[in-house]
Amino acid sequence: MDITSDTHSQHISRQFNQELEELKTRLMAMGGLVEKQVQDAVTALLDGDTRLAERVIDNDNQVNAMQIRLDEECTRVLARRQPAASDLRLVLAVIRAASDLERIGDEASKIARNAIGLVEADNGSRGFVEVRLISEHVRMMVRDALTSFARFDTELALKVVHEDEQVDSEYQSAMRALMTFMMEDARAISPVLSVMWILRALERIGDHANNLAEYVVYLVKGLDIRHTDPDELDEQSLTRKG
Amino acid sequence: MDITSDTHSQHISRQFNQELEELKTRLMAMGGLVEKQVQDAVTALLDGDTRLAERVIDNDNQVNAMQIRLDEECTRVLARRQPAASDLRLVLAVIRAASDLERIGDEASKIARNAIGLVEADNGSRGFVEVRLISEHVRMMVRDALTSFARFDTELALKVVHEDEQVDSEYQSAMRALMTFMMEDARAISPVLSVMWILRALERIGDHANNLAEYVVYLVKGLDIRHTDPDELDEQSLTRKG
Repeated sequence: MDITSDTHSQHISRQFNQELEELKTRLMAMGGLVEKQVQDAVTALLDGDTRLAERVIDNDNQVNAMQIRLDEECTRVLARRQPAASDLRLVLAVIRAASDLERIGDEASKIARNAIGLVEADNGSRGFVEVRLISEHVRMMVRDALTSFARFDTELALKVVHEDEQVDSEYQSAMRALMTFMMEDARAISPVLSVMWILRALERIGDHANNLAEYVVYLVKGLDIRHTDPDELDEQSLTRKG
Repeated sequence: MDITSDTHSQHISRQFNQELEELKTRLMAMGGLVEKQVQDAVTALLDGDTRLAERVIDNDNQVNAMQIRLDEECTRVLARRQPAASDLRLVLAVIRAASDLERIGDEASKIARNAIGLVEADNGSRGFVEVRLISEHVRMMVRDALTSFARFDTELALKVVHEDEQVDSEYQSAMRALMTFMMEDARAISPVLSVMWILRALERIGDHANNLAEYVVYLVKGLDIRHTDPDELDEQSLTRKG
């Protein structure tokens, strides 16, 4: 290393920064596709559009391919650049975030599959109001989590973590309403169960958005807040150094 | 590096190997705890033992703490040793595997929470046969996945991947049986729904065991088989180099 001239090392470090930026850009592209998958899956259900649902299921391959590609890029950067400190944290956070995005994609596929079953059985729209409400909330969480990642914005990330609590309580009350539908009408059991799986998938998507937000805090603060009660997170203590 | 004596570099590399072994040992310890959590959660349900179920819920903190600790160790090894090739793959596989083990722990907690609700409501044991069958299958998958990781045994890992398909079909047929119970008796809806959540949790545990097995293949062969249809995995092509 001592034979390296300043210009040379500046060149290396500029290249390295470009590679890190490239990883973030790829992650955001993957996030954009995944956001669209969730939106399309819910639209397919609400509009009874089975062709759109089929497309969501087909597109899941693209999401999977993006994760594999991103993982390969990250592994290559780790092996070639041997990053330390915050650069290392960034690469690890990208690997983790890609895994959560891939799982959000899986949940979108599950929603699409249940939507097809529901549309084909033509069993009314019990629970659709709840699906619409929770899906809008959860999609906002995914969008905010991605934005907080792109901007290293811990304040927005903490907002996402708090939103997840709210989604959980909306989910619980929707499940109670759906159980009542089932008890009132045995013929509703099968379709309402499908709506329950859809709600469960949405709630999971919220959890993954929450994970993404937690990686942002880890990234910026070097602080692992997974498994910390959101109410114990003092925003001041997290944003002080920001 | 050229001033380094052979003995010195041998010393370094021995220390490094010890650190990698230590990561594997820690992962196996975490795996052992998680296996026990799954077993205890199911036993709590089948024996109606709410105290055991409470213990499972309490112990989830330990699982979470083990993941955080393991992640920190992995990050430290990456930063300090800057491993390449198969060593780098090992550290990344440990990070991924710890994340799946943590999620298996979450599912065990969910099973325990549903078990408490079911025992307290005292609503019979519809679906318990199915839970026992699938839980035994899934626990074997988790155990085999961990063993395949410990021994870098790709043949055993592929066995786990194939088992997951079988569990999925057992899960589907159990869900159909449970839906029939619901339709026959509206009072059964609430307890049967709890059993459905338990089955869903078990099916997820199978998915995570499947992930663990896929990391072993990635680790040993440098081959990413996630998102590959298990039937397309030619065992010969994977074990040829083994």
